Amino acid sequence: MAEFVTERQQRATQLPPGRPESPDGSEATVILERVRASVDPELRSAVASLPGSMRRIACYHFGWEHADGSPADGNAGKAIRPALVLAAADALGGPAARAAAVRAAAAVELVHNFTLLHDDVMDRDTSRRHRPTAWTVFGDADAILAGDALQALALRLLAEDPHPASGPAAARLADCVLELCAGQHADTAMEDRAPDEVTLDEVLAMAEAKTGALLGCACALGALYAGAGAAEVAALDDFGRQAGLAFQLIDDVIGIWGDPRRTGKPAGADLAARKKSLPVVAALTSGTPAAAELAELYAEPHVGADADEIARTALAVERAGGRDWAQSEAADRMARAMQELARAVPGPEEAGGLLALAEFVTRRSR
Amino acid sequence: MAEFVTERQQRATQLPPGRPESPDGSEATVILERVRASVDPELRSAVASLPGSMRRIACYHFGWEHADGSPADGNAGKAIRPALVLAAADALGGPAARAAAVRAAAAVELVHNFTLLHDDVMDRDTSRRHRPTAWTVFGDADAILAGDALQALALRLLAEDPHPASGPAAARLADCVLELCAGQHADTAMEDRAPDEVTLDEVLAMAEAKTGALLGCACALGALYAGAGAAEVAALDDFGRQAGLAFQLIDDVIGIWGDPRRTGKPAGADLAARKKSLPVVAALTSGTPAAAELAELYAEPHVGADADEIARTALAVERAGGRDWAQSEAADRMARAMQELARAVPGPEEAGGLLALAEFVTRRSR
Repeated sequence: MAEFVTERQQRATQLPPGRPESPDGSEATVILERVRASVDPELRSAVASLPGSMRRIACYHFGWEHADGSPADGNAGKAIRPALVLAAADALGGPAARAAAVRAAAAVELVHNFTLLHDDVMDRDTSRRHRPTAWTVFGDADAILAGDALQALALRLLAEDPHPASGPAAARLADCVLELCAGQHADTAMEDRAPDEVTLDEVLAMAEAKTGALLGCACALGALYAGAGAAEVAALDDFGRQAGLAFQLIDDVIGIWGDPRRTGKPAGADLAARKKSLPVVAALTSGTPAAAELAELYAEPHVGADADEIARTALAVERAGGRDWAQSEAADRMARAMQELARAVPGPEEAGGLLALAEFVTRRSR
Repeated sequence: MAEFVTERQQRATQLPPGRPESPDGSEATVILERVRASVDPELRSAVASLPGSMRRIACYHFGWEHADGSPADGNAGKAIRPALVLAAADALGGPAARAAAVRAAAAVELVHNFTLLHDDVMDRDTSRRHRPTAWTVFGDADAILAGDALQALALRLLAEDPHPASGPAAARLADCVLELCAGQHADTAMEDRAPDEVTLDEVLAMAEAKTGALLGCACALGALYAGAGAAEVAALDDFGRQAGLAFQLIDDVIGIWGDPRRTGKPAGADLAARKKSLPVVAALTSGTPAAAELAELYAEPHVGADADEIARTALAVERAGGRDWAQSEAADRMARAMQELARAVPGPEEAGGLLALAEFVTRRSR
């Protein structure tokens, strides 16, 4: 599963500029800072309650400890999901709801990190947050067990929470885990299929399950802790999902056309890996002559660092309409997210935090 | 994690006979049959609610479907853990509590099967319930994901249960998962250590976490659903734990001295695998001359099918007191289990079901 704000996104500037950024950070940066300050103690105390062997792996994964157990500076991620929980609670229930939802925010972050631990094992990813992944340090078995433990810890946090929303929140979070599993399954299964066997609906559904579901769930949990009704909860869930899909579409565009000096990755890295990203599948299924050319290129693995071939492939995706489609689809998803937000939270003042976070994840501002 | 009633246990006759068995099955067999009849529909409906990709793997794992999705006869295990949930609920709250606890019983069985799926991946076990393990059929990633999904499903079942005990039950079950993870970690970590570096306390603690914890949790959940007080819940948890340890001790004895014609496994299979089972570690740490001989044998891997060497190794374990210790420790654990049971459920009539199940898992009768 992708980190929400990947290095390449932080550096990329390909998308139309949004609000002007202040030199010290945007509204969202301030929100995230504040969220980490309130959720971190809950998260650390939950992890500290793990059995020793599991705690050690979790503390490494969160960046709180080095592999030898000595304290580390910590880069536990941007905390976008906890921020969505708290912003949604605040938007619908004010500061009291926000304060009550801190435990739920930590639970969502634990679930996110459980999926990261397991996805890294399955995808054989060796680097995460600029450090070797847990499985490369502790082995597959320990990374699997630590992931299992973080899932259990998340649901225990909610089960022990006396708040009346904790039961429905736990059910919703567990249900979201099922969707995350299905999304990861679809993603790994897709890797093994021929490019022309994959439909655009499938890739969109996979991205929604893998990326949108937990963002939506985070917003829904915040709404539940604010005592919101079913319609508002559903609207905020969809707000998070649509923003998540917009994020994925934009991330995929950057993965092809992002400036390597800014993304920190080689140009067209996703193309070289023959990744069936959203713009690529849109291009492949476009029925254009460029689609046929792209299919031919994708039928063979990329060899060496053939910059010409990457450029040809990127051009084929673009000529087949993949880039335009992804950008317009991202805009549509964001528009839908905004509609859902307005439905659940009509007041612009109250909606401000969620709006800033949605803009942050979709790179309109940060 | 060991199945409670392994094939070798079903066939072994090495242990002192308990109650006479009726030709058609003992009390426990009748209990288990009845439990499966009431829990199976709940379990199947929960699994049916999984996303398609996860459902397919789960249905295979439970033995309900073949790998191609066609229906199979199904050998989903003996359902010892659900039986303990229902027997504990019944013992402390009668038929109404028993009926209310069916969902919790299914949740415990889901957690058990989640750990089986993951343990098989980590231990590279290729066979489970006489069929190829899920990872050998679907690959590691899918087996990991299906395990993740079963954990989430278990906790969702409890989160959706309106019964007042469901919250405390979910917290307890999640906590038990943490202990199971720590136990599996200890087990895999022990495999990599020299035999003389492992203490008896460590192996006992590992067996309690890996085998006792979920049995204890099953009993505790039943007690919670019966509205029992903290003291009774704790006593039944310990009853399950002690019975689980007794089971493990006896299983380890059979793993060394079980008659291969009855266990279906080669003589001394655990010795050939250099397994650090309880009798072996007791022998190694006995300070006897036989311990030194055993340590020497265990320092080298077993080669080929050297029956003489296995016989010598088994004799060394026995001469070092490993066999006697394990049998007497199993008896002590069972005695403690009986004390805890009497404390929580003083009436012999009410305690009958739990007693029969404890005897069943420890092979006194079945």
